[in-house]
Amino acid sequence: MKLLVVGSVALDSIITPFGTADDALGGSAVYFSVAASLLTGVRIVGVVGDDYPMADLKAIGARGVDISGIEQARGESFRWKGKYSFDLASRETLETRLGVFADFKPKIPAAFADTPYVFLGNIHPDLQLGVLDQMRSPRLVACDTMNFWIDSARDRFLEVLKRVDLLVVNDEEIRQLSGDWNVHRAAKWVLDRGPRRVIVKRGEHGALLVEQGRSFFCPAYPLEEVFDPTGAGDAFAGGFLGYIARTGDTSSEGLRRAMVYGSAMGSFAVSAFSVGGFDGVTPASLTQRVRSFKDLTHFELAEAVA
Amino acid sequence: MKLLVVGSVALDSIITPFGTADDALGGSAVYFSVAASLLTGVRIVGVVGDDYPMADLKAIGARGVDISGIEQARGESFRWKGKYSFDLASRETLETRLGVFADFKPKIPAAFADTPYVFLGNIHPDLQLGVLDQMRSPRLVACDTMNFWIDSARDRFLEVLKRVDLLVVNDEEIRQLSGDWNVHRAAKWVLDRGPRRVIVKRGEHGALLVEQGRSFFCPAYPLEEVFDPTGAGDAFAGGFLGYIARTGDTSSEGLRRAMVYGSAMGSFAVSAFSVGGFDGVTPASLTQRVRSFKDLTHFELAEAVA
Repeated sequence: MKLLVVGSVALDSIITPFGTADDALGGSAVYFSVAASLLTGVRIVGVVGDDYPMADLKAIGARGVDISGIEQARGESFRWKGKYSFDLASRETLETRLGVFADFKPKIPAAFADTPYVFLGNIHPDLQLGVLDQMRSPRLVACDTMNFWIDSARDRFLEVLKRVDLLVVNDEEIRQLSGDWNVHRAAKWVLDRGPRRVIVKRGEHGALLVEQGRSFFCPAYPLEEVFDPTGAGDAFAGGFLGYIARTGDTSSEGLRRAMVYGSAMGSFAVSAFSVGGFDGVTPASLTQRVRSFKDLTHFELAEAVA
Repeated sequence: MKLLVVGSVALDSIITPFGTADDALGGSAVYFSVAASLLTGVRIVGVVGDDYPMADLKAIGARGVDISGIEQARGESFRWKGKYSFDLASRETLETRLGVFADFKPKIPAAFADTPYVFLGNIHPDLQLGVLDQMRSPRLVACDTMNFWIDSARDRFLEVLKRVDLLVVNDEEIRQLSGDWNVHRAAKWVLDRGPRRVIVKRGEHGALLVEQGRSFFCPAYPLEEVFDPTGAGDAFAGGFLGYIARTGDTSSEGLRRAMVYGSAMGSFAVSAFSVGGFDGVTPASLTQRVRSFKDLTHFELAEAVA
């Protein structure tokens, strides 16, 4: 088990133009884990209430996710309810009930402390720092955040940035964090504050990896049917870090491959409610999806114009 | 001279957060021609008023554009005035004065009738059909359109579609045309109505080429400085068709390369007002820009997961 994720384990109620889901398995750590588990063993640390459907959680465990770090606390589980627009381009949050997640203080089990690859999901920066304090020299740490923490705990998040190798956020978040609307300049701003690499997730448009002096762009898979966009970004992060944990390759070339695995996982995530999009995915279908990105993006230069 | 463009020749007044331009050379046919002229000889057919700065037009001619098909009519030139938002993500039209462009009836000079590659810019579909009637079996015809014609002359534009090989539009236009918000399904809809290929321009996100059973995506060049987005899409089309006219290669692989030349031209166009972004471009710098797209998008697959 080489990969650890700390984050939300939730129950999502979702309304899309194509149907509704009630209290379905969700949360960033769940999407991340299910995607990553197709590539490597994953340890998950989170909290659920005493109302959580533990059988569904155990089904996640059966995929190769160690769920022993999920604490069950007295009270209600974290619930999110949202509604998507007709074209899935925007969504409205109808309800957020933090429940036991409001008092979440991640405790890393002793057996998890030496996990080499760590993903700090979108939790309070102080909690992210607390997780790092509990880890024994991980090989690579990546983190996420959200507008709420950038607003309310900006200084603490800048402390987190100093201690992570990689930031994974969406375009709105990096704009808010850097105060710059140009995502390429915004990414450079981040590189000056700690992380050696930054990934900007751009939803249906794809994802951008920025390193010092080099960028890589991977488009989203061209899907004619998108069922539910929830969790696509978390599944992307799971596929990305799952591939890195599997191969141990943190080179620039390795990260590019990892971006493609992340994009493939994002494309599976949006094909059904909750984590249902991963149900039929096999190593062979994953490999096929990853290969199809090559056909989508590669070209050969012939004649030089010069 | 293997490439012909018919479209608007205008005077643009533009306000961006970085400065303003008044009555600067603009119009889709101008951006198209200047970009394409870096790759091949271009013939341009359009109309200007008696107030047009003919010296500037002649400077375009000096780049390898045959401007003898630009008619100078009595009256005012086509003028457009627009203002961009602080992040250049949206723009507001402040004024449109069609002038002599309102009565434009493209007359293809006899010497231009055998041009093998043709781009029908954004004009009334009946005028696009009229141009086609004046051409002698061109090898490849591409066309553009806009929301106004999709609304007001939809049936006529569907007639145009039956007679062109390639449609080049932006994402809003293809959604409006097909009535489908999913651009991949929308592109298939177009392929069922005549063109063998369709290109969806997505601004800062890049451009998508869709053929039967195959798609290619080219991201926009990662620019940290964008000065004026006006004309980027027309420069893209000019680079794309300029490359095809230069090489004569209309294979799937050739079109992919052409997409990259188009994207490179788009990146030059946005770096200055009017066509100033092309001033310093040499064959060597163009080749370098094109090559950099490979580093931006390519990856090598290592281990298969299966």
